[in-house]
Amino acid sequence: MKNTIGHSITLTIFGESHGPAIGCVIDGMPSGLEINLDYIHQQLSLRKPSGAISTSRKEKDEVKILSGVKNGKSEGTPIALLIENQNGKRKDYSKIENLARPGHVDYSAHVRYGGFEDASGGGHFSGRLTAVLVAAGAIFRYALEKKGILVGSHIVSIHGIEDRKLNEKKLKKELKQLNEMDFAVLDESIKEKMIKEIQSAKEKKDSVGGILETYVLNMPAGIGEPMFSSIESRLSEALFSIPAIKGVSFGEGFGFADLYGSQANDAFYIDKGKVKTKTNHNGGINGGISNGMPIHFYTVIKPTPSIAQTQETINYKTKKETSIKVEGRHDPAIIHRARVVVDCLSALILADLLQEAYGRNYFGETL
Amino acid sequence: MKNTIGHSITLTIFGESHGPAIGCVIDGMPSGLEINLDYIHQQLSLRKPSGAISTSRKEKDEVKILSGVKNGKSEGTPIALLIENQNGKRKDYSKIENLARPGHVDYSAHVRYGGFEDASGGGHFSGRLTAVLVAAGAIFRYALEKKGILVGSHIVSIHGIEDRKLNEKKLKKELKQLNEMDFAVLDESIKEKMIKEIQSAKEKKDSVGGILETYVLNMPAGIGEPMFSSIESRLSEALFSIPAIKGVSFGEGFGFADLYGSQANDAFYIDKGKVKTKTNHNGGINGGISNGMPIHFYTVIKPTPSIAQTQETINYKTKKETSIKVEGRHDPAIIHRARVVVDCLSALILADLLQEAYGRNYFGETL
Amino acid sequence: MKNTIGHSITLTIFGESHGPAIGCVIDGMPSGLEINLDYIHQQLSLRKPSGAISTSRKEKDEVKILSGVKNGKSEGTPIALLIENQNGKRKDYSKIENLARPGHVDYSAHVRYGGFEDASGGGHFSGRLTAVLVAAGAIFRYALEKKGILVGSHIVSIHGIEDRKLNEKKLKKELKQLNEMDFAVLDESIKEKMIKEIQSAKEKKDSVGGILETYVLNMPAGIGEPMFSSIESRLSEALFSIPAIKGVSFGEGFGFADLYGSQANDAFYIDKGKVKTKTNHNGGINGGISNGMPIHFYTVIKPTPSIAQTQETINYKTKKETSIKVEGRHDPAIIHRARVVVDCLSALILADLLQEAYGRNYFGETL
Amino acid sequence: MKNTIGHSITLTIFGESHGPAIGCVIDGMPSGLEINLDYIHQQLSLRKPSGAISTSRKEKDEVKILSGVKNGKSEGTPIALLIENQNGKRKDYSKIENLARPGHVDYSAHVRYGGFEDASGGGHFSGRLTAVLVAAGAIFRYALEKKGILVGSHIVSIHGIEDRKLNEKKLKKELKQLNEMDFAVLDESIKEKMIKEIQSAKEKKDSVGGILETYVLNMPAGIGEPMFSSIESRLSEALFSIPAIKGVSFGEGFGFADLYGSQANDAFYIDKGKVKTKTNHNGGINGGISNGMPIHFYTVIKPTPSIAQTQETINYKTKKETSIKVEGRHDPAIIHRARVVVDCLSALILADLLQEAYGRNYFGETL
Repeated sequence: MKNTIGHSITLTIFGESHGPAIGCVIDGMPSGLEINLDYIHQQLSLRKPSGAISTSRKEKDEVKILSGVKNGKSEGTPIALLIENQNGKRKDYSKIENLARPGHVDYSAHVRYGGFEDASGGGHFSGRLTAVLVAAGAIFRYALEKKGILVGSHIVSIHGIEDRKLNEKKLKKELKQLNEMDFAVLDESIKEKMIKEIQSAKEKKDSVGGILETYVLNMPAGIGEPMFSSIESRLSEALFSIPAIKGVSFGEGFGFADLYGSQANDAFYIDKGKVKTKTNHNGGINGGISNGMPIHFYTVIKPTPSIAQTQETINYKTKKETSIKVEGRHDPAIIHRARVVVDCLSALILADLLQEAYGRNYFGETL
Repeated sequence: MKNTIGHSITLTIFGESHGPAIGCVIDGMPSGLEINLDYIHQQLSLRKPSGAISTSRKEKDEVKILSGVKNGKSEGTPIALLIENQNGKRKDYSKIENLARPGHVDYSAHVRYGGFEDASGGGHFSGRLTAVLVAAGAIFRYALEKKGILVGSHIVSIHGIEDRKLNEKKLKKELKQLNEMDFAVLDESIKEKMIKEIQSAKEKKDSVGGILETYVLNMPAGIGEPMFSSIESRLSEALFSIPAIKGVSFGEGFGFADLYGSQANDAFYIDKGKVKTKTNHNGGINGGISNGMPIHFYTVIKPTPSIAQTQETINYKTKKETSIKVEGRHDPAIIHRARVVVDCLSALILADLLQEAYGRNYFGETL
Repeated sequence: MKNTIGHSITLTIFGESHGPAIGCVIDGMPSGLEINLDYIHQQLSLRKPSGAISTSRKEKDEVKILSGVKNGKSEGTPIALLIENQNGKRKDYSKIENLARPGHVDYSAHVRYGGFEDASGGGHFSGRLTAVLVAAGAIFRYALEKKGILVGSHIVSIHGIEDRKLNEKKLKKELKQLNEMDFAVLDESIKEKMIKEIQSAKEKKDSVGGILETYVLNMPAGIGEPMFSSIESRLSEALFSIPAIKGVSFGEGFGFADLYGSQANDAFYIDKGKVKTKTNHNGGINGGISNGMPIHFYTVIKPTPSIAQTQETINYKTKKETSIKVEGRHDPAIIHRARVVVDCLSALILADLLQEAYGRNYFGETL
Repeated sequence: MKNTIGHSITLTIFGESHGPAIGCVIDGMPSGLEINLDYIHQQLSLRKPSGAISTSRKEKDEVKILSGVKNGKSEGTPIALLIENQNGKRKDYSKIENLARPGHVDYSAHVRYGGFEDASGGGHFSGRLTAVLVAAGAIFRYALEKKGILVGSHIVSIHGIEDRKLNEKKLKKELKQLNEMDFAVLDESIKEKMIKEIQSAKEKKDSVGGILETYVLNMPAGIGEPMFSSIESRLSEALFSIPAIKGVSFGEGFGFADLYGSQANDAFYIDKGKVKTKTNHNGGINGGISNGMPIHFYTVIKPTPSIAQTQETINYKTKKETSIKVEGRHDPAIIHRARVVVDCLSALILADLLQEAYGRNYFGETL
């Protein structure tokens, strides 16, 4: 279904950029799962715009729990989360009414919804809705961590500037460090360069994108379903809902095209009684099912389409050519904010797969 | 659900590499759609192993229609398709029982299914099942073509050897040419080089992978759903079910990471009363919804994991380290065979999205 | 999925009797559908407790639209509805903590949710949630009426007291009259008897149930899907979610057991060029698909389980026998309030089936 | 989805009365579940036409397992079952082409499918497909029995002739006896009367229906989901797919309309440490969730619509009135054959609910 994802655990999302509120319903919950509102807010803070390199729109992002939680534990019935929009400025967009912002959904949505869509700020298609993905996903990221399953990401590159590689022998330590950062880059000097690059783009009234690399540690082997429910299918279905993501790859990803099979295969061995692979080119997934090695994938975030330059476009009502200058508030880059969306949403999908495998008592606690 | 995909049109798949038969049930069918069995078989012939660069396993791949078709037209009730396995050689695999072939699902499936899985030849996870994806998808590829919607792909690269680019001004013509080829490469001399590279890999008891580029022409604007049902979400969910695919990207894909927003945005203009974009960096999709430009995406096919070299591995029953030499029949490359799987499966997903939008009379014909 | 119903249009529901709010998300909406908040509130008023024969709990039942509606028309993206609970009295229930109210979900839910459930007033299982079913369903009841499709019900019997039969030749007129009534009974003198019977039950600290009869006029022929998506399957799946409903039957229902086939079959004839049947024993449905005659079904509402008498029960925590006297606020009958829930929920299911058949433009309006 | 049912375990069904084969795909299977083909065939034999009181169509009903089973155990991947039609007589139906058989789907299906439907013998809507429901359901009926969960039914009445009531103190014993019978009636003399009544109907070129009563013993408490996934919702959704069923009720069913709440509530008590209720008016289900008492429900089977009398009808192609005499092969009653369909289909739904609760290891066995 359109705005619902998940099999055993399902997330249904609603709201618009400038409507009264955004939110979701999470169903299929285990009962007795700790719902840590502080953790949810801390995760949301990682998505917040940050100073000079982000939009000036400020939202408190306070999550209200409307149902499904009692004494800080999930009841097992649907959890509804609500985030009120406080800083929606519908007027910002009136000047550009019926103009298709290049790179945005405006024209596509106009055809899809016949003009009844909420066009302001992208409406239901706005990046604003990723706040809900973070809030919902944070519940499961927290639950996974309590099970020892760690999700974490860093920014591999922004506009050609590359972070150093993760140290595969210190993955856990480095991911934990990254998870504390606002701007998740391993090399401090690279981070500065990246921020300068974003500021430079902003000065040019332009924007930049980049690549994220994500790891999930301690995912048990044997999780995933055949065919259309492979871990790759399930994660990519979710990840492509994040507005700017235009590519998802696992393990060596597009690099596989240059390898021999003998280089791409991961040899199995036994390490202290545990099955491991010597390399992890396949990103912890064989045939769609986890093999016990870290789940490893990349996502590419396109440059933010909202830029302050004058661009050629059309008025989709008059069907005439014109130009557009999007004023409003812009993010010259969103990759550093998208990171926690990828982490939390991935956590939700993996939690769904785990509960599908082990039943509804996997995450729950008994009295 | 695990082995079912689709919203309005659903495909449910079953079978194992060496079982009696593989097949599927297609539900949500429009009634009155032409079911062209010759076309289905012609599409299946594009997936067949080809001489020296493929496995020696030969299958007739004769599709039997068990239900849902009368006088060459869909009835509207479920269509069941059956392909009997004729050349299953279970004995080929007995020597490697309980040994985890590197790069294969064997170990993951063993944990997932507790030893009850059909391990021979990958069982349910075998590339053999992609014959069903082709047969089912061919129904909709044919239906799309009658609506003027053309799907086609070429091999962008194999092990570093790159085909020339498609000519964006002659897309329709070139895709039609490619769709007639067994080995879908634009440049004849590159094709020879690629085949030599595959043969060379085979001689080294090795394998190679590559990248496919796919276009869908004349997809109407306004198709797709928000969030988890974006065209990107729906296509990637399907495409990652094809065993060797490890990456999917749309438009500029991972190349977006190096672009400015001003370079990545596609300016709209009016061409003979029709809305178009001057460039198509976003692959015909804005905010998950089609914008009327060609849908454009890439998939990467990893090198076939079955290679004739001795590889290090474990026996997952005894939990001891050992080595494995997979004899049987191997494909040193499958990318040229995977092409039609990508085309047909994509057609099925897009047909599903179209019917979801326009209702069940879109593809049907009245008496 | 648990709290989601529907194929093309989906309803996801959340909330608890004494939580901050109850509500829902409606997805798969057509765009351009009129959302008449006055009509929704008018429908909700038919569900409200009424004087001496209902609970004294009073709720304003004000529906807030959080998303998906612009200028009184649906946008096509998810509609979220919220009804705040204003009169939740958690203290009412503290005395009976851990005691299983006979006829209620308490004990079952305790086992199901391991004690994490919200037990007060039935929590998520409370009849309170039927307010959401009315609010959501009213959107589609209104839409159906604009298409000329009329849903209506009357109370066939309460505790053995029977209303007169509907006049099949004046169905439209009588249903319209019933739809205006708070207490939907055709015969005014019977209505008085029924109300006295309810009052008498209340005096005895007891409760009564009854039977509802529902008609849907002008449903087009050819709507419905085979097997598990027959109109009967789809309606019953929905109707059994209404807490007190314990039976659903179509046409002659359980009366079919006493008929010959020659009596049960409905002979077809042509009336002014339109196909009709001379009788309608099958309730407008043949083989699960509508035949153009009025859809006709019955539901039985069991007597409200909350009664003020002392009843034998157990403490499910201590596993000891005890007795319980439920004080709080009770409905000695809910059938008159359940009527509009049946009507609105049925409207939603039929709208879903219609959109599934005709596509998303069926209910929508173009600009 | 249309021809798919289930959440954790899903059944997708296909085929037509006179097509080459009918069958299904069962997905979400646990691995290691015993698949007892003899038991499946024994269950199918209970559905077979029996002598003078049934159709003369004889089918061998041999089930072929196409996938998902190895060494008599489920692999965990999809199980495809196939039953070839051997005695399909398409010619029987040619005389009545385009004539709407009263009480049958013919006209409804014609509108639904625009004339592309397979009309002969009801096509996809034929009772013939219940053979697949039995075959698929038998797998789970067998699995439930190994868990000590017993499903069984008897014929309560046929055309007004009533069997004696089940002895609630000997439920297990009596259900086991019924499960061995071809014609499931407790009182031997009543059975004879019923058979005579069926024969008498046949002589009159007529048919009769009746009521079935079903029990499920030892269903654990706490099974079922809220709202639209209550046990009542899930069972009724399935049961109404059986062609002739027009009513489903739980516990006292429509009898609740005549009871006081004090009579309808089931008082809890403790029996040897186990929670029980003194009565079981609610049929083992409170608030949609099992309470540990026997699940108890009724279904009504309408008289077979195929009768040998001349009936008034229309030709739906010419839209002219005419009469019809259905020759072919008829069942003067199907209730005795429908019994095992109800039992097996119910078993499948309950198994689905159990696996949803306990995870995929509930039914599986470890190596």
